[in-house]
Amino acid sequence: MNTPARTVPFSLDIASLQDDYRSGRRTPLDVVEAVIAATGEDPHHAWIHRLDAGQLRERARALMARDPATLPLYGIPFAIKDNIDLAGCPTTAACPDYAYVPQQSAFVVQRLIDAGAIAVGKTNLDQFATGLNGTRSPYGACRNAFDPDYVSGGSSSGSAVAVALGHVSFALGTDTAGSGRVPAAFNNLVGLKPTCGLLSASGIVPACRSLDTASIFALTADDAHRVFAAAHGFDEADAFSCKALPHGFDFGGAPSFRVGVPALQALGNLAPDYAEAWTQALDHARSLGAELVEIDIAPFLETARLLYEGPWVAERYQAIRAFIDANPEAVFPVTRQITLGGAAPLAADAFAAAYRLRELRRRCDAAWGQVDAMLLPTVPQHPTIAAMLADPLGLNSELGRFTNFMNLLDYTGIAVPAGFTARGLPFGVTVVAPAQQDVPLLRLARRWQQALQGREATLGATGRPMPQGCAVPAAVPSGQIRVAVCGAHLQGQPLHHQLADRGARLVARTRTAPCYRFYALGGEGPRRPGLVRVAEGGAAIEVEVWELPQTQFGSFVAGIPAPLGIGRTLLADGAEVTGFICEPAGVSGATDITNWGGWRAWLARAEAA
Amino acid sequence: MNTPARTVPFSLDIASLQDDYRSGRRTPLDVVEAVIAATGEDPHHAWIHRLDAGQLRERARALMARDPATLPLYGIPFAIKDNIDLAGCPTTAACPDYAYVPQQSAFVVQRLIDAGAIAVGKTNLDQFATGLNGTRSPYGACRNAFDPDYVSGGSSSGSAVAVALGHVSFALGTDTAGSGRVPAAFNNLVGLKPTCGLLSASGIVPACRSLDTASIFALTADDAHRVFAAAHGFDEADAFSCKALPHGFDFGGAPSFRVGVPALQALGNLAPDYAEAWTQALDHARSLGAELVEIDIAPFLETARLLYEGPWVAERYQAIRAFIDANPEAVFPVTRQITLGGAAPLAADAFAAAYRLRELRRRCDAAWGQVDAMLLPTVPQHPTIAAMLADPLGLNSELGRFTNFMNLLDYTGIAVPAGFTARGLPFGVTVVAPAQQDVPLLRLARRWQQALQGREATLGATGRPMPQGCAVPAAVPSGQIRVAVCGAHLQGQPLHHQLADRGARLVARTRTAPCYRFYALGGEGPRRPGLVRVAEGGAAIEVEVWELPQTQFGSFVAGIPAPLGIGRTLLADGAEVTGFICEPAGVSGATDITNWGGWRAWLARAEAA
Repeated sequence: MNTPARTVPFSLDIASLQDDYRSGRRTPLDVVEAVIAATGEDPHHAWIHRLDAGQLRERARALMARDPATLPLYGIPFAIKDNIDLAGCPTTAACPDYAYVPQQSAFVVQRLIDAGAIAVGKTNLDQFATGLNGTRSPYGACRNAFDPDYVSGGSSSGSAVAVALGHVSFALGTDTAGSGRVPAAFNNLVGLKPTCGLLSASGIVPACRSLDTASIFALTADDAHRVFAAAHGFDEADAFSCKALPHGFDFGGAPSFRVGVPALQALGNLAPDYAEAWTQALDHARSLGAELVEIDIAPFLETARLLYEGPWVAERYQAIRAFIDANPEAVFPVTRQITLGGAAPLAADAFAAAYRLRELRRRCDAAWGQVDAMLLPTVPQHPTIAAMLADPLGLNSELGRFTNFMNLLDYTGIAVPAGFTARGLPFGVTVVAPAQQDVPLLRLARRWQQALQGREATLGATGRPMPQGCAVPAAVPSGQIRVAVCGAHLQGQPLHHQLADRGARLVARTRTAPCYRFYALGGEGPRRPGLVRVAEGGAAIEVEVWELPQTQFGSFVAGIPAPLGIGRTLLADGAEVTGFICEPAGVSGATDITNWGGWRAWLARAEAA
Repeated sequence: MNTPARTVPFSLDIASLQDDYRSGRRTPLDVVEAVIAATGEDPHHAWIHRLDAGQLRERARALMARDPATLPLYGIPFAIKDNIDLAGCPTTAACPDYAYVPQQSAFVVQRLIDAGAIAVGKTNLDQFATGLNGTRSPYGACRNAFDPDYVSGGSSSGSAVAVALGHVSFALGTDTAGSGRVPAAFNNLVGLKPTCGLLSASGIVPACRSLDTASIFALTADDAHRVFAAAHGFDEADAFSCKALPHGFDFGGAPSFRVGVPALQALGNLAPDYAEAWTQALDHARSLGAELVEIDIAPFLETARLLYEGPWVAERYQAIRAFIDANPEAVFPVTRQITLGGAAPLAADAFAAAYRLRELRRRCDAAWGQVDAMLLPTVPQHPTIAAMLADPLGLNSELGRFTNFMNLLDYTGIAVPAGFTARGLPFGVTVVAPAQQDVPLLRLARRWQQALQGREATLGATGRPMPQGCAVPAAVPSGQIRVAVCGAHLQGQPLHHQLADRGARLVARTRTAPCYRFYALGGEGPRRPGLVRVAEGGAAIEVEVWELPQTQFGSFVAGIPAPLGIGRTLLADGAEVTGFICEPAGVSGATDITNWGGWRAWLARAEAA
């Protein structure tokens, strides 16, 4: 490779670009001109098709007639893996004989365009998205953004390299086995493999349709979050589409959280520089507040092996069955070998493997009782292109060792940069959680990335620094509720189990605003206080704020006996949260214990007496 | 068949038998002796293996040392389809060469025994549970309990016939395509095919493991409910086991409910006497309060055809693959033909069919937005044994036309008796609902059955009448909550959408107990009242009681602004329900509108003014 890659001469991370637009420093046309200049040559084989300069300028001018404030991705350039449709532009799946020109864009592409993003073109891939390395393409082996002798990773190879080189702000990939994560690790990017079904598959060439998802490459976790927020949505036409659900406890934003990690020896062979980087990554996790919990990774690795050793490869065959049966020579040799292997397994084998997966899934899912997230190296090693071409099946399989299980188990995973090896190549880790935990993982990835220092904190292969943090609204609400308790539900008190059994977590120990009277009520059952807001003569009362799922809160409320109830409690810091209130009739004849300042103090006094 | 069947000379329905035990009229030993006498001959080919008299007497005597009040199925005799393990007794799956003697009973069998039930023996079936007719067994074609020239239905043929003849109180079957429902229809029984996974599959010979469930045959819906309550439970060892979830709105107990029915012509060929019986069944449904809603049955019928025309038959092959490959001649000819057909489809075909199922499921599931349950004839016709043997594949396939889709779509279904044809054979219908709706369906089936009259209300083929209704506790809680509203959430008022959006249903329009003062509050947003309980000087205030899922109630509560909250409201009939309360501080300065008796009256007055 003689020609060095060119890059856009300013940071394309979305936060910086939005700031540029807002300040008037740049227009979409400026950005498009810079992208045209940077992508004129393609020594990395990142691209299969770029829109021509005229098309890009037209799109930029059209955007400039719009109000940027109404478009969350106004003027943000992006690349599209060439197994995803862009209207009017050929979809090749890296197989020229397979190419067709779609009339309409894929559902996710259209959502991004509707949000103001600028589609720049289609990127290179391991043909039909089969592979994790980036060399399996008649458009040339895609080269790593840091060192062209090394693999880019795949199958979403060009998408990752285009982002890492600073050609676009983000890119769409697809991910079935790790195609959205492995290239992120090799190019110092964030790679989001969302919960399957949240990004529609309409207009995407399937690999394994039951496991596929579109994926997002970005320079930062926040950028991935912004793109995810715009791209996800239910698609009636995609039978695998599903709605985003409230995610529950936001471990990504909590001061402490539990992270499952395998024992080092359980990871098997790691390249020596990777083993060192992994140890540093564990330190980094601890520094963020993670409590590391050792988990048994054996069932996850066994699940990972099912993907290529089991009958799921038959889905790849089914996806292009008519085409490959009619045109076997049109398919890249190693891809043909793998795909035609998918014609061999029987339906009976597929069912047997599905049963085995179900058993493994039960074992794997047990981990989520102990941890909020898992952490793994994204890949065990980083091969050169020459090494990959010498062992195209064995080495590729190695690259998926830590990624292949996630789609089979319906997990979400985000590849995050984690520094560099001694030879200057990036190292990456992946944070993993069950389906629908995309937002907590994105927020964890954000914390991870923002705590990186120096060169570790540079974006892709651009050498540019992380942008100043600015808030990203969560793409999906938590569905959690915070409730202030002041009596028998306090930690250690007799009714606390009603919170604990519902998965409640302590948020704060604090006091109310000084506008309450506090009473010890009569009646049967555990002794309980009543908190009564008053216009004057009130005091601040000890409370604890707990967080639990809204879905659990209804039954909690239904169990509260009169004269108590659930309303709003004003806290010392001025915030109003859901909390216990008391009917006026309930306090007539009750003992005023306001002076004790809290239930525990009064109980201690009562017990001492 | 020369020997007529014998029957136990008293009703074995569980309600009657429990009453007999409670009153001391009978002991388990009496019952066991009667069962021994009745099952001594088996002209219907219902049984494969009965426990010997000594074993049954020993079990009865052991029970008599126990307290009946502690055992929900104390002394209740039951039969077990011979593809379900009973410790120490051979499991044949109706294939003598396949037989093995299990060391332990199937999970569900053990639960029933632990609940006090008495296992009587193992029943005949279509070999390996492949078939819906009852003739596919080397132990003899099972004969219908009403007319031995007619098929019993299958594959759980002997289980149904043993219950219908009054040999046992209930029986376990299995159901993959309709095996728990078709024989119920042909023998005037209730046949519960529960939500897949609620009854453990451990210790059951699989047919299609991804679709199988144990099933329950009983004389009444209440009996099926009692057995289901005892049998269901999570099984860690069964990867397909799942927990029973709150079922939501209990349409089975509601005064009105919506029932989807296909147009008559959409049902295809029905036997003429069945078409007539179906029309009467629709009248019966209306008389129970059902609002009949015509639904498009095409996607359901297409799904049904997938089961045998698609690759799911490969699961049957996989279930006995090693055995049938080694011993093809040991398998019943028609069963061998079908099962070996399962060796042909490719894994690729299985995935393609799974995609198609997913698409069909989306179309089918759309019906649940319009109806609470569906109603269908259980079978389209009732063949003779001779006709069945003459066309063993074609006629069998006809029998599954209305049943085959339910397991594929993860629905629950209950076959219920619906009278008799002119020739004296039973007609049956099936009520259908999504997964986890077992209890509402059981309660609907109960209403259905209890409203039958005269001969229609007889049990199985025993000629005995329905027992007097006695309450059956719901096996699974509803998870619904009732909330009394008195102001802006009343129907037609500005905040009512907060209830409607959460799927709330009106339960009652009523008044509070006469112990409240009622205030028009100030503040921003929609005008709202405050309901304040007082020791004296109170009045009865107009309220509506709405029911909604507890999972939705938490977010409803969280949206209520101070000074309002959710506590307990005392109603005019003395019942206390969840309802709105008001902090005392909130009513200072508010207008007392108690004399208007309700929010609507006050609003009307205010608007008129």
